[in-house]
Amino acid sequence: MTIKIAVAGCTGYAGGELLRLLATRDDVEIGALTAKTSAGTKLGQHHQHLTTLLDRDVLDTTPANLAGHDVVFLALPHGASAEVAASLGEDVLVIDSGADFRLESAQDWAAFYGTEHAGTWPYGLPELPGQRERLAGSRRIAVPGCFPTTITLALAPAVSAGIVDGHDVVAVAPTGPSGAGKSLKPHLLGAELMGSASAYGVGGVHRHVPEILQNLRKLGAAAPTLSFTPVLVPMSRGILATVSAPLSGPTTVQQVRDAYASAWADEPFVTLLPEGLWPQTQSVLGSNYVHVQVAVDEAANRLVVVAALDNLAKGTAGGAIQSMNIALGLPETQGLTTMGVAP
Amino acid sequence: MTIKIAVAGCTGYAGGELLRLLATRDDVEIGALTAKTSAGTKLGQHHQHLTTLLDRDVLDTTPANLAGHDVVFLALPHGASAEVAASLGEDVLVIDSGADFRLESAQDWAAFYGTEHAGTWPYGLPELPGQRERLAGSRRIAVPGCFPTTITLALAPAVSAGIVDGHDVVAVAPTGPSGAGKSLKPHLLGAELMGSASAYGVGGVHRHVPEILQNLRKLGAAAPTLSFTPVLVPMSRGILATVSAPLSGPTTVQQVRDAYASAWADEPFVTLLPEGLWPQTQSVLGSNYVHVQVAVDEAANRLVVVAALDNLAKGTAGGAIQSMNIALGLPETQGLTTMGVAP
Amino acid sequence: MTIKIAVAGCTGYAGGELLRLLATRDDVEIGALTAKTSAGTKLGQHHQHLTTLLDRDVLDTTPANLAGHDVVFLALPHGASAEVAASLGEDVLVIDSGADFRLESAQDWAAFYGTEHAGTWPYGLPELPGQRERLAGSRRIAVPGCFPTTITLALAPAVSAGIVDGHDVVAVAPTGPSGAGKSLKPHLLGAELMGSASAYGVGGVHRHVPEILQNLRKLGAAAPTLSFTPVLVPMSRGILATVSAPLSGPTTVQQVRDAYASAWADEPFVTLLPEGLWPQTQSVLGSNYVHVQVAVDEAANRLVVVAALDNLAKGTAGGAIQSMNIALGLPETQGLTTMGVAP
Amino acid sequence: MTIKIAVAGCTGYAGGELLRLLATRDDVEIGALTAKTSAGTKLGQHHQHLTTLLDRDVLDTTPANLAGHDVVFLALPHGASAEVAASLGEDVLVIDSGADFRLESAQDWAAFYGTEHAGTWPYGLPELPGQRERLAGSRRIAVPGCFPTTITLALAPAVSAGIVDGHDVVAVAPTGPSGAGKSLKPHLLGAELMGSASAYGVGGVHRHVPEILQNLRKLGAAAPTLSFTPVLVPMSRGILATVSAPLSGPTTVQQVRDAYASAWADEPFVTLLPEGLWPQTQSVLGSNYVHVQVAVDEAANRLVVVAALDNLAKGTAGGAIQSMNIALGLPETQGLTTMGVAP
Repeated sequence: MTIKIAVAGCTGYAGGELLRLLATRDDVEIGALTAKTSAGTKLGQHHQHLTTLLDRDVLDTTPANLAGHDVVFLALPHGASAEVAASLGEDVLVIDSGADFRLESAQDWAAFYGTEHAGTWPYGLPELPGQRERLAGSRRIAVPGCFPTTITLALAPAVSAGIVDGHDVVAVAPTGPSGAGKSLKPHLLGAELMGSASAYGVGGVHRHVPEILQNLRKLGAAAPTLSFTPVLVPMSRGILATVSAPLSGPTTVQQVRDAYASAWADEPFVTLLPEGLWPQTQSVLGSNYVHVQVAVDEAANRLVVVAALDNLAKGTAGGAIQSMNIALGLPETQGLTTMGVAP
Repeated sequence: MTIKIAVAGCTGYAGGELLRLLATRDDVEIGALTAKTSAGTKLGQHHQHLTTLLDRDVLDTTPANLAGHDVVFLALPHGASAEVAASLGEDVLVIDSGADFRLESAQDWAAFYGTEHAGTWPYGLPELPGQRERLAGSRRIAVPGCFPTTITLALAPAVSAGIVDGHDVVAVAPTGPSGAGKSLKPHLLGAELMGSASAYGVGGVHRHVPEILQNLRKLGAAAPTLSFTPVLVPMSRGILATVSAPLSGPTTVQQVRDAYASAWADEPFVTLLPEGLWPQTQSVLGSNYVHVQVAVDEAANRLVVVAALDNLAKGTAGGAIQSMNIALGLPETQGLTTMGVAP
Repeated sequence: MTIKIAVAGCTGYAGGELLRLLATRDDVEIGALTAKTSAGTKLGQHHQHLTTLLDRDVLDTTPANLAGHDVVFLALPHGASAEVAASLGEDVLVIDSGADFRLESAQDWAAFYGTEHAGTWPYGLPELPGQRERLAGSRRIAVPGCFPTTITLALAPAVSAGIVDGHDVVAVAPTGPSGAGKSLKPHLLGAELMGSASAYGVGGVHRHVPEILQNLRKLGAAAPTLSFTPVLVPMSRGILATVSAPLSGPTTVQQVRDAYASAWADEPFVTLLPEGLWPQTQSVLGSNYVHVQVAVDEAANRLVVVAALDNLAKGTAGGAIQSMNIALGLPETQGLTTMGVAP
Repeated sequence: MTIKIAVAGCTGYAGGELLRLLATRDDVEIGALTAKTSAGTKLGQHHQHLTTLLDRDVLDTTPANLAGHDVVFLALPHGASAEVAASLGEDVLVIDSGADFRLESAQDWAAFYGTEHAGTWPYGLPELPGQRERLAGSRRIAVPGCFPTTITLALAPAVSAGIVDGHDVVAVAPTGPSGAGKSLKPHLLGAELMGSASAYGVGGVHRHVPEILQNLRKLGAAAPTLSFTPVLVPMSRGILATVSAPLSGPTTVQQVRDAYASAWADEPFVTLLPEGLWPQTQSVLGSNYVHVQVAVDEAANRLVVVAALDNLAKGTAGGAIQSMNIALGLPETQGLTTMGVAP
């Protein structure tokens, strides 16, 4: 069987990464590629790296153009997904890499996004307990945010095992500007970013905060709190999250390692590194892998976890394809086995 | 059939890239991984990105450890390949990513490397005329240097078509430090390289000069000359060569495009970009593709060609695997179809 | 005496660099800072690094606001300088960092800029023969382009000494995106530029070509030709030009070194590096220095010169201030003696 | 009066930065430049950016060579300072940029450095309460570590004002590899660092932890605790620390701003940025300035402070010179007023 896919919003970074990962699959046919203002251009003008697709036409994002596909990926600005999704049949698998259908709380949505809540779709983070069952056969999937994927995976085994209870979590996460998309803003210019690190969204205002807290609650945290600070650093891709939380009681690093090793024994993409190795983003560049390492800081009474992933791959497009594989009953790792491009 | 491969010199960048590209192939079994001073360590200490191979043992580079493989890749310092190769049977495919067996002229070898010439093996650049035939069934292959691959492919159609005759070629090629390997030298430290560009090997002394001239002669250039300057720039991988040469006579850019399009119509990995797009190294990062674009500078009477490739992929390990595929009668693109990781 | 200066176009990179270099001078008073669309904002919104000027108001670029200054720097888009300059008195020193008044040939201007030629002002490259005399006392100065400064200084002693005659010059120059200003274009985004090298303006179409040829003619080249290719690489600032040209006759590298050492013996900012050292852009970062090294490629019969400078400092704002110092009769190096920020 | 200075350990990054900042001062004479293994070389082989000092000889680090200077800067590996200092007269100002004399607790020293405690010298952080008085006239000064300077300045006003009490401080600090010096280690190679972020010294083991806690206690914290994680990111210089701590009670961001503005009203180098601007390392590159911004995260009940400085300038050499100025009774800002080189 060949899966015919369409990408709405193909000119952005998420769209490009979906196509990079899908274009070489034998079981996938690349169907309609659509956009809004760029309709009428060639894909190569937006993604020179998609060598085999350079001459493909970018079509307008219309129900007619998106019709007739098995899977439609939405890589649209926040707020635009609901209308497009509504035009697609219920038998079509629609996978939204935007935020619109991630949050369960309409109140959280309003507080952080300021618009009306579109609803909630099954959440595309298969590593959450019971989540694979919810995704299997689903025809609507909300891809998690890149920081929520990183930080949730960094803490999940510790919260599940009661090593931490999820209160007073502090996460600081250097990342590259590809997560901000192709927005033409001065602070995203290369001249401004190269050779410089800068924090943004400081003080609890980043839109991924409620999503992370929602995940921690699903993992069993009764009243999680989170201080989260993303930091722009001079690399195109990657997230390197340092996440710490107060220990619930005396814990050795070996106990933590055991909990993580056990939790991820059967996970294909999440890897607890051997002792002595600390995650680095280049190790997962372009791949669907997540690298994790743990430490116990006795003097500060905190568990410290460092996690690395590629924000466009596992953090967006790779995660989306992993969920697609599950929803369609394919092997979960299909098309996602390449390793990080390093050095 | 499963191809059992070994890598001698597995801890360096070339060795790591070979394993990255081979580890996910169904038709390849990763056999012995060997090194010299690092024997006894784990592969993960050298290549954190090789997620599925982190716990593999690094063995000593001995004939016994390298015995029993279908293919042995040599990723050794210059001068070390001959002895290891001599210990391997003639039925074993030996692919050397070093320089030892590239040059046909013992005099050139002596002038640029200062040691005794080891000999000449079939040259692993399938895009040269008639080269695929020489590689098919071969059991010894010399992988070209990364700059020779770039500059030769940049000029090949123009030399073959007589657009230029190969004299007074000027090539300047920004590249990343991964091409220099893991040498522990001050000028290769991150602090020195980030935010800075610097030339090296200036004035005709770079060891790739005679190899490039050898290739130009094979393409038909009677008396090629080359001014070549590599430039270190702040990126880990990639070569972006700007190559120019005097036009043999009045030539339009369309004539040049036609010659290149025709020459590469059936080449799986070399791509003349659509008009208006200029090569960028990120577009081929981690991939086996080469991107090329051409211009005619009438006022300066020069053909100008820009070519981009990944020095560790098509420039070393990808090119090696492409040649392996040909030598073993496999589809030439097997395991090499992923596209560049961008942005 | 205190020199009261104004900057028209203060929000761009050239404007910022002028202020960085002038703000700490005891003999300079920072007067009006003006802009067009950003009038009404604070300077700190555009230049966070100008610590002591963060709260300064950005005024509108009007004759009234620019009146009453000893020196007015114009850091405006091409084509905008003439009108502003016309409103300033003839006794005011007006220094234009734009291209409008650089070219002497109206035909060249039309061919490369496509608009009407504004005229020609004294050219602010004091290192050209006789140029200091032309700048002394001048009240109108055109600051050279950053590539023309680099390439002209790379070749000047060789052309003057007849080592090369200026025909068939080939220059390839990696540079950072700050030279393109704060233009909000996708290819200047950090995500696109980091980790990548790409050529642009290939084939003789870059606007600095006629300016470089004009300089070579002034140095004595009868019929200079130039193949020039700029290359964007991942660093904010800096130009590293590799410039080569056919040797007029047999020449040793020592003869070349002698010519350069002699030509620059009294130049405060141009430095022929000791033998064995090759220019690197970090060595001149933020400084007004130019570093140069030479080689003779006998086999290719070319002189090869590598030159490094900071495109915003010596290449724009530093060069402008150097000319200001000369025009006002101040010590030429005043305020320009800091060395490159490395590593 | 001219101050004659010597630098022991002149070939490293700290030594180079001291010379960069001192070489252009009219009131400073550059005396002996010494090193150990590099004695007999020229300074230009180690610091190409020190244009005016390229031909200076590197002498051996001996008492004879260091004799006869007003100020001797020690930029040596940890553990080497005591012996050199003992050979210098008590009237000579000795400023140690190493760690040897920073800690007051011999127990802390033993726990984190594993050798015998050398003693304690006046601590060169003038922004600490009462510290300028201790430094005035002193002839021995211990320069603070780069992370301690950053994190202490980030928290000082909040601890002094009782906004936080110093317990459960969490600091995560992306930085560049220049802080690690010119150590020839694989993980510091440019190929490994460019395009990648990685944590190190995780879990409370970094040697700067006890120094930071010592400073917090001096500021009035009764029982401070600290979880500190440095992160290597792809820039040569700079520290961007995100520091958070539980609020002692309900606090508005305006109250915090008032406390910081008040505390730093007279500080020449520490700047609370205007509201809306967040620190970025390029803004302080090469300068002695520290940029700070604050937020209150009510939901997480934490004060969040972001601070940026240049680890080699204010974090090492600039701070050292600031202390020298104070010790010698010179204006504190002498030679340190240049602003950050951005973009």
